[in-house]
Amino acid sequence: MKVLAELMEQIQSRGDLLTILDAKRGDIASTATAYAQAAFGGATVNGLSLPSWHADACTVNPYLGADAVEPFITAARAATPGRGLFVLVRTSNPGGGLFQNLPAPQEPLYCKVADELVQWNAPGVGECGLGDVGAVVGATNPVELAELRARMPQVWFLVPGYGAQGGTAADVRAGYRKDGLGAIVNSSRGVTFSFHPDDPNWQHAIIAAARKAQHELRP
Amino acid sequence: MKVLAELMEQIQSRGDLLTILDAKRGDIASTATAYAQAAFGGATVNGLSLPSWHADACTVNPYLGADAVEPFITAARAATPGRGLFVLVRTSNPGGGLFQNLPAPQEPLYCKVADELVQWNAPGVGECGLGDVGAVVGATNPVELAELRARMPQVWFLVPGYGAQGGTAADVRAGYRKDGLGAIVNSSRGVTFSFHPDDPNWQHAIIAAARKAQHELRP
Repeated sequence: MKVLAELMEQIQSRGDLLTILDAKRGDIASTATAYAQAAFGGATVNGLSLPSWHADACTVNPYLGADAVEPFITAARAATPGRGLFVLVRTSNPGGGLFQNLPAPQEPLYCKVADELVQWNAPGVGECGLGDVGAVVGATNPVELAELRARMPQVWFLVPGYGAQGGTAADVRAGYRKDGLGAIVNSSRGVTFSFHPDDPNWQHAIIAAARKAQHELRP
Repeated sequence: MKVLAELMEQIQSRGDLLTILDAKRGDIASTATAYAQAAFGGATVNGLSLPSWHADACTVNPYLGADAVEPFITAARAATPGRGLFVLVRTSNPGGGLFQNLPAPQEPLYCKVADELVQWNAPGVGECGLGDVGAVVGATNPVELAELRARMPQVWFLVPGYGAQGGTAADVRAGYRKDGLGAIVNSSRGVTFSFHPDDPNWQHAIIAAARKAQHELRP
């Protein structure tokens, strides 16, 4: 957590980068409110000011229902500047379909999560035509990705699964809107594990991996 | 986290209490493994020994599928002494039914989660007839609680919703097996928020609230 705090501070001191805290929070009531306040704007309890990650966005697990999501929407919209969140809809891990793909009753469960998300997002849609409640949609199934893009035209997508998990630049294309906006493609292990632990020039490997991803993902 | 660490240490130094870390973890792969190792037995990475909560059990969110649960089962069974987990099945919060109660396709989604859980639990069933992969099942709907008890006879239930959330001792009865075993009824706010912040004798209020719960829940 110290390393994360230092990293967040370095990123924020630059002023030109946004941060997404991939905490996958999934709790309710006072705990969810505390998580949300810790992620975004901080909180004051009994006169004691509690620390915050000052993240620009946070990921949230929907299994517990609207109570698990709403405290994050409230805290995101109350913060200055405004923040946002990404709700797990259709994740990219091998077992993601076990429950998410269950017909419920006609369509998969993740479609129901998507439909709720559209409602949560609507009040936060800005001039750019995108809102503050995003969706995590994996890159590993381009057909589902395209269907969800059509279903949620005003929703930001956070797209894991590109790189180390096997998704290609062609696979993630379906996540963007026609104007080339609307998706944030994430490469974690593909960049941070791009070198051998003994490599003294590991920084170069990281820069090369980041540039390669940037090049592949250019529209 | 310092307060939690002190509390865990105090509980463990007594030697006669078990701890359930209600972290509601919901992640995959290396992150889930790290969470599981941190919860139970600790881990060694590159020769560096990482700290552990040394909890006896941990709660886990199933939305990401088997990948989100299996690292906890592996770590629980690898630890000495053995540990366990509780998977969120049907939670007690007001919005818990939004997705959990969706027909998928004939029965609610939480029944599908329960059926998977029975499979995960089976290899860990001990002489007492109960296993190491438990279920979180809220007290706020006694009919569902009874159905799930019948569906998962060898599964430990962790039952929130009693007390502050409105569930009564009569409501939680359906969570027990006929032999009076199989359920752990949790009262958090009902005990820890049982006094006024200005009350100098707050310890007495907590003891009284805990004794009241103990009395109500006695078979």
